[in-house]
Amino acid sequence: MKIALAQLNFHIGNFELNRDKIIAAILQAKEQVADLIIFPELAVCGYPPRDFLEFSDFIERCKKTIAEICAVTHDIAVIVGAPSENTNAAGKNLFNTAYFIENGQVTFVQHKSLLPNYDIFDEYRYFEPNRNFAVVTYKGKRIAITICEDLWNTSPDPLYVTKPMDELAKFHPDLLINIAASPFNYLQYQERKSVLQTNAVNYNLPIVYVNHVGAQTELIFDGGSTVLDNQGNTLLEFPFFEETIGYFDTENPQSKTKDIEIPKTELIYRALVLGVKDYFQKMGFTKAIIGLSGGIDSALTLVIAAEALGHENVLAVLMPSQFSSDHSVTDALQLVENLNCPHTIIPIESMFQSFSTALHPLFQREKFNITEENIQARIRAVLLMAVSNKFGHILLNTSNKSEAAVGYGTLYGDMCGGLSVIGDVYKTQVYELARYVNAQQEIIPMNTITKPPSAELRPDQKDSDSLPDYEILDKILVNYIEQRLGPNELIALGYDAAMVQRILKLVNTSEYKRYQTPPILRVSPKAFGMGRRMPIVGKYLS
Amino acid sequence: MKIALAQLNFHIGNFELNRDKIIAAILQAKEQVADLIIFPELAVCGYPPRDFLEFSDFIERCKKTIAEICAVTHDIAVIVGAPSENTNAAGKNLFNTAYFIENGQVTFVQHKSLLPNYDIFDEYRYFEPNRNFAVVTYKGKRIAITICEDLWNTSPDPLYVTKPMDELAKFHPDLLINIAASPFNYLQYQERKSVLQTNAVNYNLPIVYVNHVGAQTELIFDGGSTVLDNQGNTLLEFPFFEETIGYFDTENPQSKTKDIEIPKTELIYRALVLGVKDYFQKMGFTKAIIGLSGGIDSALTLVIAAEALGHENVLAVLMPSQFSSDHSVTDALQLVENLNCPHTIIPIESMFQSFSTALHPLFQREKFNITEENIQARIRAVLLMAVSNKFGHILLNTSNKSEAAVGYGTLYGDMCGGLSVIGDVYKTQVYELARYVNAQQEIIPMNTITKPPSAELRPDQKDSDSLPDYEILDKILVNYIEQRLGPNELIALGYDAAMVQRILKLVNTSEYKRYQTPPILRVSPKAFGMGRRMPIVGKYLS
Repeated sequence: MKIALAQLNFHIGNFELNRDKIIAAILQAKEQVADLIIFPELAVCGYPPRDFLEFSDFIERCKKTIAEICAVTHDIAVIVGAPSENTNAAGKNLFNTAYFIENGQVTFVQHKSLLPNYDIFDEYRYFEPNRNFAVVTYKGKRIAITICEDLWNTSPDPLYVTKPMDELAKFHPDLLINIAASPFNYLQYQERKSVLQTNAVNYNLPIVYVNHVGAQTELIFDGGSTVLDNQGNTLLEFPFFEETIGYFDTENPQSKTKDIEIPKTELIYRALVLGVKDYFQKMGFTKAIIGLSGGIDSALTLVIAAEALGHENVLAVLMPSQFSSDHSVTDALQLVENLNCPHTIIPIESMFQSFSTALHPLFQREKFNITEENIQARIRAVLLMAVSNKFGHILLNTSNKSEAAVGYGTLYGDMCGGLSVIGDVYKTQVYELARYVNAQQEIIPMNTITKPPSAELRPDQKDSDSLPDYEILDKILVNYIEQRLGPNELIALGYDAAMVQRILKLVNTSEYKRYQTPPILRVSPKAFGMGRRMPIVGKYLS
Repeated sequence: MKIALAQLNFHIGNFELNRDKIIAAILQAKEQVADLIIFPELAVCGYPPRDFLEFSDFIERCKKTIAEICAVTHDIAVIVGAPSENTNAAGKNLFNTAYFIENGQVTFVQHKSLLPNYDIFDEYRYFEPNRNFAVVTYKGKRIAITICEDLWNTSPDPLYVTKPMDELAKFHPDLLINIAASPFNYLQYQERKSVLQTNAVNYNLPIVYVNHVGAQTELIFDGGSTVLDNQGNTLLEFPFFEETIGYFDTENPQSKTKDIEIPKTELIYRALVLGVKDYFQKMGFTKAIIGLSGGIDSALTLVIAAEALGHENVLAVLMPSQFSSDHSVTDALQLVENLNCPHTIIPIESMFQSFSTALHPLFQREKFNITEENIQARIRAVLLMAVSNKFGHILLNTSNKSEAAVGYGTLYGDMCGGLSVIGDVYKTQVYELARYVNAQQEIIPMNTITKPPSAELRPDQKDSDSLPDYEILDKILVNYIEQRLGPNELIALGYDAAMVQRILKLVNTSEYKRYQTPPILRVSPKAFGMGRRMPIVGKYLS
């Protein structure tokens, strides 16, 4: 049996585009005389469709698209994901379903059994878990179809009480297919590979795995669709971050191949480029605007944006104040020159004076403090948004994860933007990415990388005035945010108790700020945003 | 058996405060010679604890608090909600549990079976559903304990396949207790009463229902704890929005009482006052700041804030521009005088000029458009946040739900604030609330209520220039947002097809704005925020 794997970039709710992509892929697979073509989970509507699923109109459009797909399935079978209606009275009204289509008809369905509901996932919000199992026989092979999470219960402390593969194994399948919507993070690839290998070996089955590629707002899908033999060896593996249709013949399988290995920093970089590119493409935008400070965060953001959108489409705006160092302008200009991006300079001192004058009656007895620092950051946001509004450039946010964690940023100031590019990248990782960018030639000016980080909002300010060294801060943050260690566990690791307490308090009391930040491209196993849900009025470690 | 119902206001993660409240209530109930005291669902940690539940340190503190409660349970039994650990290998690691405590020990636990995961609920994210049922016998009575949602499967199309009460009925209980964390919306009270009545009648059981009171960021709990007899008659009902400890004697029950009935507008008003009050109290803030435009939205917000925080604690800031009408200032000043709030006036023209000058090189060939409107709104935000930063006033957002729905507001401008007070109140409801406020005497100036709504960001601007009449707009919005009708269903109701299409497109393409707005006090069954989760890059009805 010749199987086509369609690792495609779908668009949530864009039924016309998704249908056209699916049908084009089917026609291509027919030309290649494939017997079966496989599309990812919920390919018809895009993933994650979220509360669109609560509209019966949306479900009708899914059904209509399935009918349109049926029309081109003569001489080929199709496996494709879409929601379907649960016709039982009790339970949620929808299933997350893999449709098996041949000769113009849906001949078999398998609903998803394990519904992930942690981190960024909300599937139990919409779907009833499947409790009925069967295999479909096609071209003499018994095929077990699973959907993403259905294979992810191999841990000794599994999240679910049922094991779909134990049920499906009773039907003695010859082949295991998994259609997925498994978002990228820098650890996900290894975990995914390990889960697939474990299933191949445990059930002595070859596995065909087909994943989404492309970004949907904050979620980035890396693809990595793959075929494993029944010993867990990789026979075929698709490139990451690229749309690919490839083929596998069960009667004439590829020989064992080496797993793709991409260094973590490169993975993150490529994920972020795809994230920016798809956000703009799917929103219908072409141009971006970035406030360029001469510091490393905005420099890295500009490099990523220029690669994603084309250097000519990213406008850099330099907005020096009376507190800006000379190098902040010269470093920024050097970067703009290296990248050949358009730029403009708007000094902010006159506007700062104008606010100071207007606020003088109220503030005359008060000292310069964080208020005046924030006014500068907010003037810059007003300017960036004005250019955005006038010419249609989308503002990219340049905050990093370390700042976002401890609230070291100005709400409605440098925390503005349509999309946060590096908001899931700790400061120490920002340096790693900058070195990766500069590996072949100096793009980000060396001085931007080597100078001490500073917000430059008051004379001689340094990040280290208010924050611990980023090397230490980031380690504590990773342990708290990604690993979810509590204060006692952190102190047991050897960190200073007072520092741990102070950092955790900063993180927890900054929740109100993060609530209002733009969506953040997710590259870690625990990003701020939809995957980390914290009470604002909570009084815990704060 | 004399039962105390403790309808209290807990604080998420504030274990010391919650413990002290619980223990004080137990001691009071002992003085009243009660046999049993009942606290709400997850009272120990507050509701909803959200991802704090993923920290083992947090769970340890829950256990420690339960131990501290045990110490005062001699001569009285206690039912109290807290998370507990699931010791089975498979399934999620926690249960949402009702502890039964007597004589210093936990003698019985009942875990929650039905885990709500719709709208604002995320319980399946954390908890394993219960599958084991039993009753506890105390003072000769068999008591069935359920937790909130466990009773909410009485619809003919239930969300769940199991019926906990069918299981518990097998043990022939004498009394049904439900501990709840059931957040307010203006329909919830009636639905709750109906669900409790249905259960009382179906299972022929008296019901004691104990709910939270108080607000946790956007969620407002109204209390309304109640006792029903086995025919569903109300024997006891607690006041809404107030902490109350009350008593019920099963051997000497109160006679049938009339259900509390509060008009919808008053319910919403009181909920919003509590929401503002508790946000400030739980965050440790005392003072608020509001930008007062002379329009009805900021006027209503100021009235609510003054009632919640005390008139002397709410600073009104008037920020007229060259486009402001005379009445915008006079109406605002009249309101400030009526409420006796402090106020200040900061004209924004000089700052607007300063931005215009700075942007002149870029904008010289461009016409005045929405960009300049937004600059004015953003200057106001910079000023409000400057006062907030300097003196510690928290900015209250004044946007209404109709604006938020169609994106009629400036991000980082009038959409700023720590908390959105009326963001779940449609414009037509804002008028109803204003009339309610003025029922006894004119507090909100009549001119504020009668003049046509305008953002006053360009000469002679009116909301009706860009939006349909609010009477029609709000009806379409309620049908789309609360009822989740699709375009065809809306057109079938008689609305103009082009208008429906335009409004739905405005709602869906404004998702990126709403993503960055402050938490919104929830008073409807479907508020923007955590209860409505929409993709930003989605291309559906847009």
